[in-house]
Order: sequence, then C-alpha cells, then structure tokens
Amino acid sequence: MSADLKRRKFIKGASLAGLAGLGGLALATGTAAQTAGSDVTLRGTGDLGVIIERADGSVLIVDTTRRTVIWRVEGLGDLSHASAVFSRDARYVFVFGRDGGLTKVDILEGRIAKRIIQGGNSIGGAISQDGALVAVSNYEPGGVKIFDAETLDLVADIPATWGPDGARSKTVGLTDAPGGRFVFSLYDAGEIWVVTMTSGTPEIEKFPHAGALPYDGLITPDGRYYMAGLFGEDGMAMLDLWQTEKGLTRILPDYGRGEEKLPVYKMPHLEGWAAAGDKLFVPGVGRHHVVIIDRTTFAEVGRIPVHGQPVFVMARPDGRHVWVNFALPNNDTVQVIDVLTSQIIHTMKPGKAVLHMEFSPRGEEVWVSVRDENVVRVYDTATFEEISTLPAKAPSGIFFTARAGKTGL
Amino acid sequence: MSADLKRRKFIKGASLAGLAGLGGLALATGTAAQTAGSDVTLRGTGDLGVIIERADGSVLIVDTTRRTVIWRVEGLGDLSHASAVFSRDARYVFVFGRDGGLTKVDILEGRIAKRIIQGGNSIGGAISQDGALVAVSNYEPGGVKIFDAETLDLVADIPATWGPDGARSKTVGLTDAPGGRFVFSLYDAGEIWVVTMTSGTPEIEKFPHAGALPYDGLITPDGRYYMAGLFGEDGMAMLDLWQTEKGLTRILPDYGRGEEKLPVYKMPHLEGWAAAGDKLFVPGVGRHHVVIIDRTTFAEVGRIPVHGQPVFVMARPDGRHVWVNFALPNNDTVQVIDVLTSQIIHTMKPGKAVLHMEFSPRGEEVWVSVRDENVVRVYDTATFEEISTLPAKAPSGIFFTARAGKTGL
Repeated sequence: MSADLKRRKFIKGASLAGLAGLGGLALATGTAAQTAGSDVTLRGTGDLGVIIERADGSVLIVDTTRRTVIWRVEGLGDLSHASAVFSRDARYVFVFGRDGGLTKVDILEGRIAKRIIQGGNSIGGAISQDGALVAVSNYEPGGVKIFDAETLDLVADIPATWGPDGARSKTVGLTDAPGGRFVFSLYDAGEIWVVTMTSGTPEIEKFPHAGALPYDGLITPDGRYYMAGLFGEDGMAMLDLWQTEKGLTRILPDYGRGEEKLPVYKMPHLEGWAAAGDKLFVPGVGRHHVVIIDRTTFAEVGRIPVHGQPVFVMARPDGRHVWVNFALPNNDTVQVIDVLTSQIIHTMKPGKAVLHMEFSPRGEEVWVSVRDENVVRVYDTATFEEISTLPAKAPSGIFFTARAGKTGL
Repeated sequence: MSADLKRRKFIKGASLAGLAGLGGLALATGTAAQTAGSDVTLRGTGDLGVIIERADGSVLIVDTTRRTVIWRVEGLGDLSHASAVFSRDARYVFVFGRDGGLTKVDILEGRIAKRIIQGGNSIGGAISQDGALVAVSNYEPGGVKIFDAETLDLVADIPATWGPDGARSKTVGLTDAPGGRFVFSLYDAGEIWVVTMTSGTPEIEKFPHAGALPYDGLITPDGRYYMAGLFGEDGMAMLDLWQTEKGLTRILPDYGRGEEKLPVYKMPHLEGWAAAGDKLFVPGVGRHHVVIIDRTTFAEVGRIPVHGQPVFVMARPDGRHVWVNFALPNNDTVQVIDVLTSQIIHTMKPGKAVLHMEFSPRGEEVWVSVRDENVVRVYDTATFEEISTLPAKAPSGIFFTARAGKTGL
C-alpha cells in the first residue's frame, strides 16, 4: 500500500460508529487523499491531538474542539507501549514504537513525513527543550540515540556501556530537561545519566549507585527533580538537576513492592505522578492505594484507599482533582480524588481496559481510551458527564499538542 | 486603506533593518497580499507569537523558531496598554485595545478576522477555559462584556453597578478561572466578582469589602487563588476559588505604598508575579526590591534589593531564574535573580524603555521589547547572550501562542 493510500481523511459528519470493529481492513467510510496537500485545511494546531491505535500500527489525528477524528495514519509498526512527543510548532508528532520505529507524522496533512527503524526494541523518547533534537531510549542495543527533529538524521549515539566488560544496559525513563539536557536511567547498571547537548556533541554526566533495576523515571513539571522507580528494591533515586553536584539522594524508603514482594499486575507509569498544590499523588506499587507525598520534603504524608492497583494517577491541570485508572482485574474503572479532602468523589466504569487519560490543556475535559471497547470517551471534568464517544481501534495513549510547550511531556 | 492592503507579508530573508523608524508609513519592504488565502503557508501554530506595536495600532506576527516576522497587521486602534489572549486552536489572537476595541486577528492569514468597538475605555480581557467566550473589562461604561469567541457577538453584558445609587465601577484584573468562570475586581466599589458562564447566562457571586481601590488582579498558575492589589491601602485581597464560601482573606499587610505614600512611577503589573518552587516573587510597590512570599502561607519571607522599582517580575518557565524590569528612570535595565540563592546573577541594559518580556514555552529563550529603540531582543536564558534582534515599531506586549493552553494568560 502506498503512503498516499495510507492517508485517509474522515468525511465530516459521517457516521464513525461502524469503524470500531474493522481491525486491519482499509477504512470503509472515508475518502483517500491521493496527493500530499489535498483535502488539507489551513488551521491552527493548538487543539489537535493523537490517539495511538496499538493493535493496528495506526494513529488517529483528532480535533479536540469539535471532538472529531480528522485523519487515520497507518503504517507505524508495533505500537504496543508507544508514546509520542510534539514538534515545537505543534505540526508534527514523533511516535516511538516498541519495534524501534521512530515515525514523524504530519498532523496537518495526515501523513507520515518520515519513518526510520532506529533500534531493535525501544521504550520511549523525548524532544529537546528547543525542539531541535529527538532522543529515543532503547532496550536493544541498550542506549540512547539522538536525532535531528527536522530530518531524523542521527546526531549522537550514546551506548549505555557500564562495568568492566563493557556490557550495554537497557535504558528507561528518558526525559528532556531544561538546559538542553536529556536524562535517563540504566536498568541493568542501576545508573542515571544526564546528557547535555548544547554544544552539539553529548556531554555525559553519570550518577552510579541509583539502586537496583530502575524501571522508569519522571521529571517534575518544572524540570527540576528527576526520580527513578526501582524494581529490585524499595525506595526511589532522586536527582536535583539544579544541583547535580550534590549527587543522588534516596527518597520514599517504603515505596515499592515491599519485603513480601507483592504481585504487581502492571508496574505503574511514573509519568502518571500528579503534582497538585504542595503535594504529589503517586500510585502505590502493587497496592490498592494512592500515596500522598509532600512536595518539599518528598516524605510520605498519607495514603488513599482506591479500587485496585493504580496505573496512572493524573492531576487535572488545575490540580483540584486527581484521576486514577487501574491494573487488571480492575481496569474497567476510573476514580476521582478531591485533593482538598483526599476523598474519592466519583467512581465510573468507562469499560474494559481503560489504558490512558489525557486532559484538555486547561482541564475542562478528559479523554479516556478504553481499549477493549474500541472507543475513546470524552468526559466533562466538572460534572463527570460523558460528552462524546469516538471510535478507535484498541486505543492506548492519547497525546494533545499542548504538550509541545511543556517539559517532560 | 482596505483591509486587504493592511495585510502585508514580509519577504523571507529580506532585510528588516530599515523598518524600525518608519512610524506610520506603509511598509517599504514587503508584499501586499491581495486576497485572503494568498501567500498563506500551511504550518503549525505552536511556535507563533504576537508583538504589540503600541504607537501604530499594529501587531507583528512572529515565528519564534526562526525568529522572524511573518506579518504586520494594521488597523487595531489605540494599543497603549493593550493585551492579548489566544483562541483554543492557537489560530486567532484577541487583542484588547485601550479604546474599547476588540480585534480578532487571524495569525495564519495575517489579517483582521473581525473587529468591534465594545466599550469606551477598556483595560484587558480573558478567554474562557473552553475557549468559547471572550470577556472584556471596561472602565467606561464600567463593567464586563462577554462575547462569542467565534463571531464576537455579545453573549452577556455585566454592568458593575454597586451601592444604593446604582453607580457603575471601573473593572480591572479580569481573568479566566477553572470551572468556566471569570473573576474581576471593581476599582471604585472595592469588590471582587466571580462570574460562572457554564449555563450560558452569567451567575454572579459578589465579594464586597475587598479593600480600597483594587487596581489589578492576578490568578495563580493553577487557577486556585485570585489576588487583588490595592491602590488605596496596603495589603492584598485574596479569594480561594476552591472554597469561595470562605470569602475573602487579607494577605501581605505590608504590601503596598506604605504609610508615607511612596512615589510610584508605575504600578507594578500583578500579571508579573513569579511562581518558582515553593515561593512567589513579587514586585515591591514603589520600592527598589522584590518581595519573596511563601506560596503556602502567603507570608513575606524575604526581600531582594534590585536596580529600580520593579514592573514585571517573571519566572523562567522552569522556575530557576526570575527576570525583572523596572519603571522610569531605570527602565533601560533588566536583572536576573537566581531563585536558589536569591542573588542577582546578571544585569543587562537592553536599551531605553524595556516594557515587556515573554519566555519561550520551555524557557530556553526570552523575548524583550525595547520600546524607544524600536526593537525586540531575543536572549539565550542560559548564557544571557543576545541571539537575535527584530525591528518593531515602539513594541510593548509580547504574547506567544502557548498561552492558549494556560489559565490566567
């Protein structure tokens, strides 16, 4: 199938209800745009978004104002666990596939602008503060590769070598940081590396002894603190990027699977930490609670019992509410916590396999992907009313263009 | 001059050096785009911005990635003290002029999409959380008008009447807030009003006894706390929008002009409060210092001596540095404070009449308008090196499209 035929624009107002079950078939309703530029509308990109259709290697480009699908773009490879970041101008989305694919999609024209296979097995990426560089974190071969955001030409290859025998470590928890930096963790090596790219070539600062098997990382919204969760022991490693000379500190000694090694159905995403007011809300690993952490001292100050093992714990952009989804067997449910009272104020069942949630930039709506129902549901965050439903094939991650202006997203 | 002739696109790569001194003359270099849609480029709008040219009633549309001027749009009336907000899709900018003009500019096509005179003397505006409504704050006749963002049709007229004789108050400090709300202060009445628009008609909650002559207001970045500065007495009025039933509280009893009524060359903009980490950095009124406030208790915790009377005190998006400009006779200077040490780490002199500063969304650059030099200077915020200079006619406010996704901007 040619690239042009893979680009299909939905007819405005056409019923999309029949789409959900089509699987890998070409789209029945919709017109094929034959040439680049045709059917393309002059429009702002501030209210667009991307939904990953994980089973089909496709993405939907959506209009979050009209709550409609504009394009389906196919041919992105294995999108299980895929994530995405946006170009500085919010015209392109870079999609990181599990198969090592890095795909640059033009969201205005609804087509693949460029696609490369940059590694064997990758696990996420980031875009530099100035938008000029895209970095990808690889399991195989272990390391980070950095590409020109315009051309996808390789700019730097950073193998995650460690120890006396020069073995390579899987890399995880890759994020951008202020100062033209990227930060990531070495799973096998138990290290955190900070790479500064302002000179054009990587300057690497290595922080060993981060702990056993860091499996994911996150950066606070201001870009100051990088934290890595540990699979091999309890506690987390933290690096203050304002004062890297102070080295790593260990926080939350009780955070993790615990001595009894609880069964964990899904390691919670650390991206899903919620900063709300002077507190952080964090998924308890393998436990049915959300942990409350003081944002200044990073000490645990409370726990909120919830419906299952939390996966994403996400603050509404104004920080008043925190939305939580769960691992199997409770992944049909979403709960909402009021930050002022630490009480659950709402429980809803969007359907089987709620995988991700994305708030509109100023928080009036949330889009929820329900994989096994083949829908994305849109809720009013004030009333919890369902406003709209969009068909999508096994949807997982949802990413809105406002991320382009934010650190760590 | 027809609307079409008022729309001019700059030739890419053409020298702009000669533009600065042209005053009201038609632009010498540049081509007139004769019809809507011609010369218009399909592009993302995530990296665009608007610069107010206050003396000429024009705005420049700029590309912040290439650091170039794309369009000059003329015919916006009196733009002294003008401000601007962006549409949800980041395609349009709404410019609030001092003469009561509300102009909707299409930044992709570089033309006025719609312009109305909505009041006699206005002082800023806001766009609702969902992007559907634009509100304008008026001195004359005192009150707030709310318009459909699409059509600029009047949706609600809220006269700021108060007291037994039904006099109307000037309104100031208008901002959007989560929950589909607008918040503003009544200068003459000393009240704060919260207007909820979710039902389509205004529901007004009034908070009297805010203090003498509130002259401006701001909302914290999370949209929780609204604060009004007082011209008639010291201290500030604060409203917790999460708990409006608790009413107004008074904070910062020593904040203001003081008993001796210091000469104040320019009342500091409260928009220019900087939230960085667990602190707020606030311009001292009429004093040569920046006040540090604890973000939780709202108590003053320190003062930093600076070069003059601060006007804007703005945090770099990562919160590590705070940039400060000053009132006459020190308005040729900018100082940078390191938040970690509370020390001034850099002093620069961009030129006569530094009026405004705008950071790129992730903070790697700052654009500084220097009115009397007819330039906007772009600085690298890490090295303080000047990267670029753009000619502009008496530039004042600078507004980048990333504001579209933020509360209170």
